[in-house]
Amino acid sequence: MGIYLDNGATSYPKPSQVAKAVFDFMVDIGVSSGRGGYKKAMVADKIVYDTRKLISKLFNQNDPKKVIFTLNVTEAINMALYGILEENDHVITSSLEHNVVWRCLKTMERDKGITISNASCDKDGTTKAEDVEALINKNTKLIIFTHASNVLGSIQPIAQIGEIAKRHNVLFLVDTAQTAGAFDIDMQRDNIDIIAFTGHKSLMGPMGTGGLAIRESVDFNPIKQGGTGGDSAYPYQVDYYPNKLEVGTLNISGIAGLKSALEYIDNEGIKTIHNKEKELRAYAYELLKKIEKVKLYGPDESKDSAMVISFNIEGMRCEDIAYKLDKNYDIMIRAGLHCAPLAHELIGTIKTGTARIGIGYFNTKEDIDKLYEALVEISNEA
Amino acid sequence: MGIYLDNGATSYPKPSQVAKAVFDFMVDIGVSSGRGGYKKAMVADKIVYDTRKLISKLFNQNDPKKVIFTLNVTEAINMALYGILEENDHVITSSLEHNVVWRCLKTMERDKGITISNASCDKDGTTKAEDVEALINKNTKLIIFTHASNVLGSIQPIAQIGEIAKRHNVLFLVDTAQTAGAFDIDMQRDNIDIIAFTGHKSLMGPMGTGGLAIRESVDFNPIKQGGTGGDSAYPYQVDYYPNKLEVGTLNISGIAGLKSALEYIDNEGIKTIHNKEKELRAYAYELLKKIEKVKLYGPDESKDSAMVISFNIEGMRCEDIAYKLDKNYDIMIRAGLHCAPLAHELIGTIKTGTARIGIGYFNTKEDIDKLYEALVEISNEA
Repeated sequence: MGIYLDNGATSYPKPSQVAKAVFDFMVDIGVSSGRGGYKKAMVADKIVYDTRKLISKLFNQNDPKKVIFTLNVTEAINMALYGILEENDHVITSSLEHNVVWRCLKTMERDKGITISNASCDKDGTTKAEDVEALINKNTKLIIFTHASNVLGSIQPIAQIGEIAKRHNVLFLVDTAQTAGAFDIDMQRDNIDIIAFTGHKSLMGPMGTGGLAIRESVDFNPIKQGGTGGDSAYPYQVDYYPNKLEVGTLNISGIAGLKSALEYIDNEGIKTIHNKEKELRAYAYELLKKIEKVKLYGPDESKDSAMVISFNIEGMRCEDIAYKLDKNYDIMIRAGLHCAPLAHELIGTIKTGTARIGIGYFNTKEDIDKLYEALVEISNEA
Repeated sequence: MGIYLDNGATSYPKPSQVAKAVFDFMVDIGVSSGRGGYKKAMVADKIVYDTRKLISKLFNQNDPKKVIFTLNVTEAINMALYGILEENDHVITSSLEHNVVWRCLKTMERDKGITISNASCDKDGTTKAEDVEALINKNTKLIIFTHASNVLGSIQPIAQIGEIAKRHNVLFLVDTAQTAGAFDIDMQRDNIDIIAFTGHKSLMGPMGTGGLAIRESVDFNPIKQGGTGGDSAYPYQVDYYPNKLEVGTLNISGIAGLKSALEYIDNEGIKTIHNKEKELRAYAYELLKKIEKVKLYGPDESKDSAMVISFNIEGMRCEDIAYKLDKNYDIMIRAGLHCAPLAHELIGTIKTGTARIGIGYFNTKEDIDKLYEALVEISNEA
């Protein structure tokens, strides 16, 4: 079945119970939630609510009703940014954001008159919290930071930034697309107001899941209107959560799978997952470093980082590296800009992109050994 | 397992191959589409593209790249309305719209300065096309009509309205939430510019699927920005389809299930599905008519209509009807406003709501007989 090393895009395989939970929901329950009053509808309601509670617990968030489910983390971030930012607002972000954040902000800069400041970072992709603080002005409404770069893996000092945001009374949104499920993230401890999460990467749930975990005291307007299963005679969107931000039928079979994945993670323990992945990343980084023509980017093996490693081989296009790995070795990795041009500007690869491996909880040292052996051969062809 | 008669909310059960297709995708393929270049990614790409083609074929749409997948039909309608309507635009709609249309339009009326005209309809919920034409003015940009009322089942004359829209050079959007998969809908023949569809009702696919089928010549701006897997260095949303309107990771396991459901429908034939459901609805309407205290709304058994029947029992709250059916007879129906207050204003049930049955392709006459027997007993208690 090949060696899958593109877990930065989506985790694969999932724990076996996840697909089974989706299947069982579809076959045994199958009804909508928040709509009907019959017994089966209550079962569906409970699955959705229990999943909200598991997300709330995972992030130490304080109100499950303010866990909002969306199609994906992209939609979740759009919802928060468009819901929060108004004309003349100032927003601070990192120099490593994914295009969901960057394109939203650039579009709002063009169409809505917001202003953007990017906090600088070092070559490994780490930002200093004090550089963020120095950018705050009287119009700053929001700091939005990716927890980890999806290109470099570098971890941002979110606890320190959270403390600064709190002190200046600025909202703090963290994009945990590359970390939720594999890192200890605590909204209370780290003073995070909003977490955007994807269900299908390190949370090991199905595609079609993701959302926002919002602090109880934080409120913003919806960008979508629709049926909410209650107060139907009211001609505008209702004002209570989760219905305020959730419209139409949810992906309940996906949420049933996410629930099962969250239970799996809760059972394994974030620490166990984190340590295994960290060890594998360090092992991979050390091996890849040995290959003469390989140029590595981002934090080295001594640093705690998200489970991606970007690299290039001298004299070879990154797309060719990925192609050869797939064709000749059945090893799956990504090549390109990974939807994050800012990070490539930082490391000087905006024209070329990088090859990127993404390590998951079900990878093994043997997978990494095979990758290493393949890259030795490929680099000899370069 | 009880008798499920809430197919207006979501169809249940699905064809058995649908849950299996979701499961198999998650276990055997599991990777993202439109991102990686490896063989498995190509398999995922093909599943998504084949599903676009099946939707395109179903609606006789002319460009699969302009089949856009969203979380649900609610998101699809938001995307179209917010993408199309600007300040001072005039929009014409029916008097039967679901809250997704109604709340979107009311919000844009309040915040964006659009104007709205509702075409009147008769007590059965049918609009005359000439009444729509009479409302067109020089600012009319869009006609949006539900194909069938989700409360009454009444079918709107979309072919005639489409002809009018075309003649006046006005965009025509049809909400097919209650009809796609069970009615013959043809974008070319009926001059429809945009179809909004849900995957999980009569299309028999998984929750978490839905979208837009857009005529090749129609173009509008996205309401969400994000990663699209290509042109990543460009700071705004890309301008080509489907990427222009699709951001982030799709619900590919759900789409794999939808593909399987569309193949099932293609195999059975829309006509076969339609005729079976039509016969069951007529059978149910005739039986329910016999119960003295039952008041029925919407088109009678002689009319072609979507597969819902709204009713009340004299002297009883609709919620109590639904509760008794579930508790004592294991029959699942809906009660309330069904997210469509306009239809209830029409039939005088805005304060009370209605009980609603929704018939699906897997219901039988025996199910309807049991419903009838139960309602006879319940109405005797009223």
